[in-house]
Amino acid sequence: MKTTVIGLGLIGGSIALDLRKAGIATELVGVDLNGANAAKAVTLGLVDSIESEGTAITTSDLIILAIPVNALAQLLPSVLDSIKKKAVVIDTGSTKRMICRAIANHPNRGQFVASHPIAGTENSGPEAAFEGLFRGKTNIICEKEKSSKEALELAERIFTVLGMSTIFMEPEEHDKHVAYVSHLSHVSSFLLGQTVLDIERDEKNIFALAGSGFASTVRLAKSSPDMWAPIFEQNSEYLSQALLEYIMHLQKFQYFLMKRDGKELQRIMKDANRIREILNGIEYKQTKLVQEK
Amino acid sequence: MKTTVIGLGLIGGSIALDLRKAGIATELVGVDLNGANAAKAVTLGLVDSIESEGTAITTSDLIILAIPVNALAQLLPSVLDSIKKKAVVIDTGSTKRMICRAIANHPNRGQFVASHPIAGTENSGPEAAFEGLFRGKTNIICEKEKSSKEALELAERIFTVLGMSTIFMEPEEHDKHVAYVSHLSHVSSFLLGQTVLDIERDEKNIFALAGSGFASTVRLAKSSPDMWAPIFEQNSEYLSQALLEYIMHLQKFQYFLMKRDGKELQRIMKDANRIREILNGIEYKQTKLVQEK
Repeated sequence: MKTTVIGLGLIGGSIALDLRKAGIATELVGVDLNGANAAKAVTLGLVDSIESEGTAITTSDLIILAIPVNALAQLLPSVLDSIKKKAVVIDTGSTKRMICRAIANHPNRGQFVASHPIAGTENSGPEAAFEGLFRGKTNIICEKEKSSKEALELAERIFTVLGMSTIFMEPEEHDKHVAYVSHLSHVSSFLLGQTVLDIERDEKNIFALAGSGFASTVRLAKSSPDMWAPIFEQNSEYLSQALLEYIMHLQKFQYFLMKRDGKELQRIMKDANRIREILNGIEYKQTKLVQEK
Repeated sequence: MKTTVIGLGLIGGSIALDLRKAGIATELVGVDLNGANAAKAVTLGLVDSIESEGTAITTSDLIILAIPVNALAQLLPSVLDSIKKKAVVIDTGSTKRMICRAIANHPNRGQFVASHPIAGTENSGPEAAFEGLFRGKTNIICEKEKSSKEALELAERIFTVLGMSTIFMEPEEHDKHVAYVSHLSHVSSFLLGQTVLDIERDEKNIFALAGSGFASTVRLAKSSPDMWAPIFEQNSEYLSQALLEYIMHLQKFQYFLMKRDGKELQRIMKDANRIREILNGIEYKQTKLVQEK
């Protein structure tokens, strides 16, 4: 089927690669506001050709939206206005409330499947795309009852082809959960980076002492501000709540640190150690999914 | 030479493996307060045999101390009291002020080299040890002028054998810098883990949404509380300072988040993005060191 990917970055580009390989996208068209990125996507073989947004939207059977969430909330209504009768539109946004709200009463709501395939790296742009990015990861579909049976079936088939397991959730629940397990860790990483860069102005060569632990904790601080600022804005209440809880925990820790209360510090760290089982669980699940493929 | 490693965990065990391989430790003795760990270290081949602390200390030519920093500050003076005339003692502690202070006026101060080989993983215990842990990493030696020429030469030879580049620093400077680039990232990770575990009590299945970004940011929360609590206590002033700056940056971010000031959020993230070059620099340096070996 004729497939259009709007937004040819890490996510859109990687989906394009997998959909072509699986034979789902027999004609693969790209759309990108950034002309240089669009050209690169063709050179890299992510898509066959570039079309104007208008042409691509009105002639495709499947449209994947992989653009920043602010652009997504703006563009989605007009996409649904002009698509073909049986076309299916799938988004990949990291927030779901604003997006679902934007098309809640649209007559073609049934042709849209609100999705969030949870995968990524700290890199962005068409060069960052690669085959298999989504393998073993989790996909969320929201408001599945508002999508038509046909649209939902195609979306589920696509995410299965990408190697993902899909779970269903309401937009509120989705946005709250990702605030904690995804958005908060990005914020903590960005600000850790900033704190250390800040002190470096006075303390030269501080990074000579940075090891792999620091690198791992601060990795997400490399992420794209253009992509993350709109996500944070759209999820500001839940993220704010998560951030305040994080700050509260840090302040409590700082209090025990000033008191040199080693016992209490140790108790907090032992509690946090439980994350080990959870991380092992995530790894186990991903390995299992990859092996099953 | 007869080498004793006191503390047979990740650090001590990994040093033992490399020193035997390089032919420096012709007789390799282990000491560990934990009998089970001591036995495991022999079974795993980290050391040849276990001796009592007293025997090992009075008969060895080289003593490596790889125990938690509180135990280190306590044990070090008595080690220097009873070593052989030309024996050399090297520590591996992550703080340096308290340790250097503990033996500042010891008559055998010259036989000691205050070191911090910056390497590690989130795992601990003898099973976590492996050959090559230190390759490409940085080692810090403090107060080098207080070590004898012979002791310093042996220490430098050992760290070169481990594949490390050594830089020299005063204990104050060391403790301040590691507060930012190592201790703070551990705290940020421990508390991120705690925040998310906390919310999980109310929000079941929240971890279904956790991806590789979360895993990377929270990895250090798996670290050993027994090892880290004494480090944090000994470095509490500098770490407190770093932590307060981190909290201040987080609070500022939260303020712009509540205001939905996307521009300011983006500016902060762009600033933090500079960490990319620095991380690339660390990687480049490590790769170069490994290749040179």
